[in-house]
Amino acid sequence: MKKLLLATTMLVTAGHYAAADVSVSGDGRMGVVSDDGTTTLSSRMRIKFSGSGTTDGGLSFGGSFRAADATGAKDGTKGSTFISGGFGKISMGDVDSGDNVSQLASVGYTGLDSGNSISYSADAGGDNGIPGTFGDAGGARVLYSYSTGPVTANVSSAQLTDGGATAYGLGVTYGAGNLTVGAGYGTVEGGTLGVKFYDGAAYAAKTIADASVTDATVSATYVMGATTVKGIYQLKSLDASSAAATGQDALEVAASVTSMGLSVTHKLGAVSLAAYGISSELDGDTLGTETATVSRYGIGASYDLGGGATIAGGWASVDAAKVAAAATP
Amino acid sequence: MKKLLLATTMLVTAGHYAAADVSVSGDGRMGVVSDDGTTTLSSRMRIKFSGSGTTDGGLSFGGSFRAADATGAKDGTKGSTFISGGFGKISMGDVDSGDNVSQLASVGYTGLDSGNSISYSADAGGDNGIPGTFGDAGGARVLYSYSTGPVTANVSSAQLTDGGATAYGLGVTYGAGNLTVGAGYGTVEGGTLGVKFYDGAAYAAKTIADASVTDATVSATYVMGATTVKGIYQLKSLDASSAAATGQDALEVAASVTSMGLSVTHKLGAVSLAAYGISSELDGDTLGTETATVSRYGIGASYDLGGGATIAGGWASVDAAKVAAAATP
Amino acid sequence: MKKLLLATTMLVTAGHYAAADVSVSGDGRMGVVSDDGTTTLSSRMRIKFSGSGTTDGGLSFGGSFRAADATGAKDGTKGSTFISGGFGKISMGDVDSGDNVSQLASVGYTGLDSGNSISYSADAGGDNGIPGTFGDAGGARVLYSYSTGPVTANVSSAQLTDGGATAYGLGVTYGAGNLTVGAGYGTVEGGTLGVKFYDGAAYAAKTIADASVTDATVSATYVMGATTVKGIYQLKSLDASSAAATGQDALEVAASVTSMGLSVTHKLGAVSLAAYGISSELDGDTLGTETATVSRYGIGASYDLGGGATIAGGWASVDAAKVAAAATP
Repeated sequence: MKKLLLATTMLVTAGHYAAADVSVSGDGRMGVVSDDGTTTLSSRMRIKFSGSGTTDGGLSFGGSFRAADATGAKDGTKGSTFISGGFGKISMGDVDSGDNVSQLASVGYTGLDSGNSISYSADAGGDNGIPGTFGDAGGARVLYSYSTGPVTANVSSAQLTDGGATAYGLGVTYGAGNLTVGAGYGTVEGGTLGVKFYDGAAYAAKTIADASVTDATVSATYVMGATTVKGIYQLKSLDASSAAATGQDALEVAASVTSMGLSVTHKLGAVSLAAYGISSELDGDTLGTETATVSRYGIGASYDLGGGATIAGGWASVDAAKVAAAATP
Repeated sequence: MKKLLLATTMLVTAGHYAAADVSVSGDGRMGVVSDDGTTTLSSRMRIKFSGSGTTDGGLSFGGSFRAADATGAKDGTKGSTFISGGFGKISMGDVDSGDNVSQLASVGYTGLDSGNSISYSADAGGDNGIPGTFGDAGGARVLYSYSTGPVTANVSSAQLTDGGATAYGLGVTYGAGNLTVGAGYGTVEGGTLGVKFYDGAAYAAKTIADASVTDATVSATYVMGATTVKGIYQLKSLDASSAAATGQDALEVAASVTSMGLSVTHKLGAVSLAAYGISSELDGDTLGTETATVSRYGIGASYDLGGGATIAGGWASVDAAKVAAAATP
Repeated sequence: MKKLLLATTMLVTAGHYAAADVSVSGDGRMGVVSDDGTTTLSSRMRIKFSGSGTTDGGLSFGGSFRAADATGAKDGTKGSTFISGGFGKISMGDVDSGDNVSQLASVGYTGLDSGNSISYSADAGGDNGIPGTFGDAGGARVLYSYSTGPVTANVSSAQLTDGGATAYGLGVTYGAGNLTVGAGYGTVEGGTLGVKFYDGAAYAAKTIADASVTDATVSATYVMGATTVKGIYQLKSLDASSAAATGQDALEVAASVTSMGLSVTHKLGAVSLAAYGISSELDGDTLGTETATVSRYGIGASYDLGGGATIAGGWASVDAAKVAAAATP
């Protein structure tokens, strides 16, 4: 049998960056981390490459990735490339989803288990260890951003790698004086998703088909001189029905989680203080766990030594079992 | 029992590149690819490092590799290093084989399955998805190039990693006015090779021992102002006899393939047009498939936006089943 | 059951390196290596990133790693970061252990199986192919160095990744005129270690628990104009008692090895000559091999071509079976 492969490409842009248009920057850290009683040395160093250019017509293009992500950047799953002009900005690669309207302030210097993070449905690269995240779908994404006056709109589409699921995210932010408010809506539907469930005894990874996750989020950020207060409110729901099949688990889940979070940062000269708290209430859990309220909170401080260096420390409490439960819906 | 390890090294050159002698350049792209009806987002970014120096005696030395190939470059299988002077140029690493006298123009911005590629026997890094390629032997290579007046000669030797096969390539090009002609001969013999066969139903990878592949290629390139026409004619033969053994398949193959290809590129101000066509005729296939003619063709266009950016698009047809058959000899 | 995760971080420093504070350097080599009769092409190219900065208070901070180690550097197992000032220098990552007071001169351009290397107990990144090395424990380390006048002291602590072993190293060097002498003591205790034993027939990797390795080393370096002579004397002992358990081998080993080594380097204009010899005497081997003396020696020469390039060659003999035996204690 004869099979024809017909391939076409439509390129938005390809940029070549001469040496003068590439910048190499980096960051490093060293310290000690204590996690649930286990204390370990913790250090790292990273390098970031950025390329940029301008077309004769005045469009800007460029991209960036970290040295450790070089292979992913070659495959389009890490780093990102962009082109921007009067029409807005189009980015592709490992970009934020459109419904990502805000994240609370982080504490410590390692992020301390990302306890401050809110997860967004349309964010294909979501970390399934974060409360409220429904699996990590991976894959490349495209993000379109447009700003006019005080309004910025973001629209994203994810090209998920696991079975043809589709994800869309939409977010709008509006800034007026010291206040910025945002609202986002995201959905991921169809395909197969990896989800972490807490089944009452253990924190198990399940693979389910026909999963649908949607979220609606509002956020507000208020700046009062050296103090910034941020609030996030998110409704999230999961609908999953999966028969037992090869590589899949039989599950019927319909649940929702309501998360409310607040963070405050304050600068006192060279000192920066940060604190956050998030409460997530799980409803309609069909896995046998009672309706639960999960809380996470943390505080941190850093001191600017000048020249790009800081001393930082932080403390966080993450309600682990409940986190797993919260991750269920 | 006592075992003595005697190790010696003879170094052609070792170069240390100070920061001033290293350049960092890169490229990026973003767009959409449609392959046989499946449309996906496609983006990437790459960074390339180049180092160079000059000895007191006037010899040039240097090397380069891409960020994603950093580990391969450390092991000598990716990127390359060179030293050059009046004696010519010696390169080691992932270099072209000597019999590689030409490649047709490519279309699109992703290469579209490399439909335009001719494979060369002595090229250890050949892609076994390309018609006429006999497996990917991998491994490091050395290439010696010498130019005098209009004549350039290339000689390569591959150090194959799979069982001691040896590969040699020789090519000569001659330029006279607008015309450049080339002739190459390459051979890979002995050892174990991975080969893709189309057995009438599926496209299966086989591992065979005692394989021998040779090719003879002639090419011509004619430049007429903004138009470049290129033609390639290649005879290639495979002889493989392999008994069923651990990790190997029992096969007896003696086949040849005759490939003829033509490409045309034309520049119209900021617009570049390209088209190619290759026809490969398979003869003496011993795997049950009839003698076949395989065709691949593609067209593409790009528009120079200035500043290093272009918009590009292309369309290609690759006769898949026949490609597999053509890959057989 | 509810589980609380309490995480804290105490950061010594985090540095952000602007493009102007990052330097990119590199090295390359190409040549031929003959190992026990097998001759192969050998080439490589590497790039190294270095970042540095100075705080307002005059402390220096920075770090570096190679492109091929980018992922390890992100995880703190490759490359290193440091902060230094009047208090000395603290480094974290893939640093030398404190008991590493000296290494003999190497020959050739590939190191020729590291035949010149002395292994140190507290060096978590030790190569278990080197005589006298007791497994490769991997993992991150911290090194504190302090110099005052002619005295330099190094103290290291390793955070081993395999089962909670702890390693400490202490070394002091004293320089007086042309002579530098050093003394070091290192120990790694507890946890599970991978060790290579020569059991009389083969060179087998064993996994043992409750292993304890200690070493005491003295070294001296004397510079006479263009000639440098270096000597190392090391006592090393291994105590291991391991029951047969999942993933572990039943072994009872108590052995020691006494190593003596000498190297000489000499410069004659653009030519550099180097030679080394090491003799290791194994005692108390409980694995059935007789008490053995293992010898390794090598000679090499290099010629400086200017501009950062050299031609180098070397020859080394490594007593393989005995090396394995010597690696036993």
